[in-house]
Amino acid sequence: MAREIERKFLLTDDSWKAAAYQQTDFAQGYLTPLQGAAKSSVRVRIEGSVANINIKSLEIGLSRDEYEYAIPLADGEKMLTTLAVGPVIKKTRYLVKHGEHIWEIDEFFGDNAGLVVAEVEMRAENETVLLPNWVGREVTHEARYYNISLSEYPFKDWSEDEKK
Amino acid sequence: MAREIERKFLLTDDSWKAAAYQQTDFAQGYLTPLQGAAKSSVRVRIEGSVANINIKSLEIGLSRDEYEYAIPLADGEKMLTTLAVGPVIKKTRYLVKHGEHIWEIDEFFGDNAGLVVAEVEMRAENETVLLPNWVGREVTHEARYYNISLSEYPFKDWSEDEKK
Repeated sequence: MAREIERKFLLTDDSWKAAAYQQTDFAQGYLTPLQGAAKSSVRVRIEGSVANINIKSLEIGLSRDEYEYAIPLADGEKMLTTLAVGPVIKKTRYLVKHGEHIWEIDEFFGDNAGLVVAEVEMRAENETVLLPNWVGREVTHEARYYNISLSEYPFKDWSEDEKK
Repeated sequence: MAREIERKFLLTDDSWKAAAYQQTDFAQGYLTPLQGAAKSSVRVRIEGSVANINIKSLEIGLSRDEYEYAIPLADGEKMLTTLAVGPVIKKTRYLVKHGEHIWEIDEFFGDNAGLVVAEVEMRAENETVLLPNWVGREVTHEARYYNISLSEYPFKDWSEDEKK
């Protein structure tokens, strides 16, 4: 079990793309519905050619308990096809190093096309993060930017106010 | 991924207990609520001193898709404590060999005390199973006997009719 501590931001432009040193295609879906009594999200993800299952406690904010286990690719593909609740999310994740941190920038496709979100993972909640100049508004505490929410309420259905 | 094919029965007496060649204590809980849009159950189980996570398609009847992965014991214990939806189910599982089949007999405790269920796993839906004389009514198609249901609607709350 790990404790995930991360901050999420929107982006001001796409100047980060030139600095990306890695990009990987992701397909992911959730086995748990967002509505209901679940205390965790259960996510199946295909990351390039490997698959994993990930369980995160459902707390909005900086830090959450996280468990992740590698699973056979064929299992991951079958689960996304037959057991995912809501549409499978597709995105490309870019990695950009800035100062001491690795930034993960997710560019979404399909129903979430147009949405780009940057995340930075920290070792402690009070850790100082040097913000790149392509980083805009912080959305760490806004539930609609969580992937589990994007699978049920995708970016294409957001109002203009919600997209700001 | 495996396809689980099994039949469930109630028991007529406890004469099976003398024939049990193994018994193991189980503690298990579900990360997915029974109510809601989930297409699968996600179960965390401590079995003796090992833990696993198990995903089964939610279909009532003989056969279901099943995925199971070993996880660290400490992860399993933390998930049962912090992420389980509803009470953790505790039971002892006994194994009894009869003819060509291994029978799993679950004796429940806590809110499900008094309930004993026998399951037999088969290789094909049309496979002939020799029924031991301690096997009673078949409950394969009765949802309330599924463990995920027992965690939300335990045996202690059943009507006398439901217990027959």
